[in-house]
Parts: sequence; structure tokens; C-alpha cells
Amino acid sequence: MVNYPVGVAMRPCKVVKSPTKSTFGKRGMNFEAEINATNTYYLAHGMAVIHKKPTPIQIVKVDYPKRSRAKITEAYFRQASTTDYSGVYQGHYLDFEAKETQNKTSFPLKNFHDHQIEHMAKVLSQNGLAFVLLHFTTLSRTFLLKAADLIPFYQKNAGQKSISLAFIEKYGYEVPTNKIPSIPYLECIQKILGGEPHFTTTSN
Amino acid sequence: MVNYPVGVAMRPCKVVKSPTKSTFGKRGMNFEAEINATNTYYLAHGMAVIHKKPTPIQIVKVDYPKRSRAKITEAYFRQASTTDYSGVYQGHYLDFEAKETQNKTSFPLKNFHDHQIEHMAKVLSQNGLAFVLLHFTTLSRTFLLKAADLIPFYQKNAGQKSISLAFIEKYGYEVPTNKIPSIPYLECIQKILGGEPHFTTTSN
Repeated sequence: MVNYPVGVAMRPCKVVKSPTKSTFGKRGMNFEAEINATNTYYLAHGMAVIHKKPTPIQIVKVDYPKRSRAKITEAYFRQASTTDYSGVYQGHYLDFEAKETQNKTSFPLKNFHDHQIEHMAKVLSQNGLAFVLLHFTTLSRTFLLKAADLIPFYQKNAGQKSISLAFIEKYGYEVPTNKIPSIPYLECIQKILGGEPHFTTTSN
Repeated sequence: MVNYPVGVAMRPCKVVKSPTKSTFGKRGMNFEAEINATNTYYLAHGMAVIHKKPTPIQIVKVDYPKRSRAKITEAYFRQASTTDYSGVYQGHYLDFEAKETQNKTSFPLKNFHDHQIEHMAKVLSQNGLAFVLLHFTTLSRTFLLKAADLIPFYQKNAGQKSISLAFIEKYGYEVPTNKIPSIPYLECIQKILGGEPHFTTTSN
């Protein structure tokens, strides 16, 4: 693990003594499925109302067979103009995108599209909470990075193809991944909203 | 149900002297298209970030032709589990459904599904702003009715098939429809958030 400068840097939502393999990796579920399961957990427990938006589809042809429901026979995937997830948590608007990589030291910027960055900037301007959840599958580590930190980096480093893990560790919030719900990102949101001071992890 | 004191009743967002024919009816656009246009206006002017969710589709079969993009060849419409519109306005989470009717004196309750009502109740419990936009096409009148007023009515009147216009006039907020943007529902939201006292309309 990276050594952080004294008194700075990493801000885990929960102090993780040593990174354990994420349980969902073992169960063979992917990151998106785990976020959906987490959101279902939050919904069932009255903790937040967060939904994944349906995939946008361009419908070209629909058949209406007699005595049967409409059947779409020609359609194409469209690129989403917003992020994948949004909802409400204690009056706060949350808006985020979730991505994963197999890289170990950096997160590829190509995972984000210009229009998603623009969307997050617009959400920020309306005082919404926009962020990304970044999952390093090989490391079994997940981070919440605020759009307020991602966007300036994205804009300044158009030529650069990825965000270093060090940057994410410095500015992001690590999400524990070894309990139920498996990606408890609301713990990070609580810290952000509570304005808790950044602290160094005791695990270093 | 709550009884409002005398002199309260209808709360138009703007005093409309006499209901004028909605301009969008003349242009041949439907209610949904006008709401989308209104949201585009709000987005372009930095006033709010509200999007319509894509229609949920159950994809059964996809072809991947060589040198061509993926083509969905069998898919079906699914019923949405949430409302159609959501987004953020000055830090507030907005969540709503838009419906229209050709009726003149009442709005059919069948326009709302149980799961949409449940979703709006969950949004309210997270301090989100949930509501419906009800458009009477024949009358050319549009109302914003808070979910906090709709839900108790819906639950108490399961046997009743519609909400009377009188109820909507009493508890709802009338949205002017004769300017750009054509359905300026944010004016109602501003009044709700500002806690402005209810007032009777001069047009009654």
C-alpha cells in the first residue's frame, strides 16, 4: 500500500485495518450488480432512495401482435446523457457514476465521457452531490471521488489518460467493501455532509 | 384529510386572470414533449437539472453484426418502478410524474400505479420534493399537486376512480401555460419552498 504524507491524504469512510478481498468478487457479482444490491438495501431500510436509470434505447420498429404485448423488433443502444445513478438521501440530491478497472495504479479517464462530466458540473452548480465510485477490481478497493475533485483534474489533464491511485487516495474517500451492504457509500456521503475534517488512516 | 381555513384554497403560482388556451396545444405538441422542452430550457439557463428517465426495456435478444453496432432484435416494454422525472433544483431533489386527461371535471386515478405512489412516499420520507403535474387538455389548465396531498387522497379513496377538479384546485398549484417555458412548474416549487402563504385566486 502507498505511504501517505504525514497529516494529509487518505480519508477512509471507515478505518480499514488491512484491505480484505471484496466479498462480492468472491460471489462472482460485478460492481454494478453490487451497487444495485446496495441501493436495494438502502431502499428497503428507508435509508435512501437511489435508482439506476434504465439504459437509453432508440426504438426503431415495434410489432403489435394480436392478443400479445408489444414486441420491439429493432432498436439500438444510445449513449446516456447523464450519469447512471441518482436519488435522494435526507433531502440531498445524489448523482453518480460507477466504474471499475483492472489496473492497479491508476484509473483510465476514458471511462468518463465529456457529457457525463458536463452533467456532473451542472449538478454541482445546482448544489447537488455529484461523485464517482471507482472500483479497482484487482486491488479490491473502492473509492468515492467527488465531482468537485474529479472535474478540475479531468479538465486540466485532457492529455493525460488516467488518474493515479495516489491522487484518488489523496482526494477520495475509501469505501469499505467487506460487509453488508457491500458498497456502503452513504458512509462517505455522511462524512462529506457532516464536514468532518480529513484524517490520516491508522492503517498506515 | 386536512381542512384548510376559509380564505385559503387555491394557490396559483401566478394569478391567471382567465384561462387562455395553452400555446403548446396549438403547436400540436403533447404534454410530455412540453415538459421536456421546459426542462431543456431550465437546463440551458442554469435554473435546474431535471431529466426524464429512459423508458425501461427488457432486452431479450441482441445481434452483433460485423462492422456494425449492436442491434436489439427482441425486446419488450417494462413498467417503470419510479416516476418519469427527477433532478435537482438549488440543492433540492425533485421527483415527479406528469399526466394528462381530456376530462373536464376530474382526473382519473388509474393514471397512477401503486408502485409510483409508493415511490413518491419513499421520496417524501427522504425529504425529497415529490409531486405530479396534471394537465387538463380540454380546459388547457395544468396543476402541480404535491405527493403529500395526492397520497392520502389515493389511499383513502381506493374505490373512487378520480380526483375532482375542485380538490385539485383547492390543494394544488396552478401552473401558467401561456409563456416560455411553456410549463414553468419551478414557479410553483419556489412558492412551496419559500413557504409563501396560500392565497385565493382573483380569477375565481
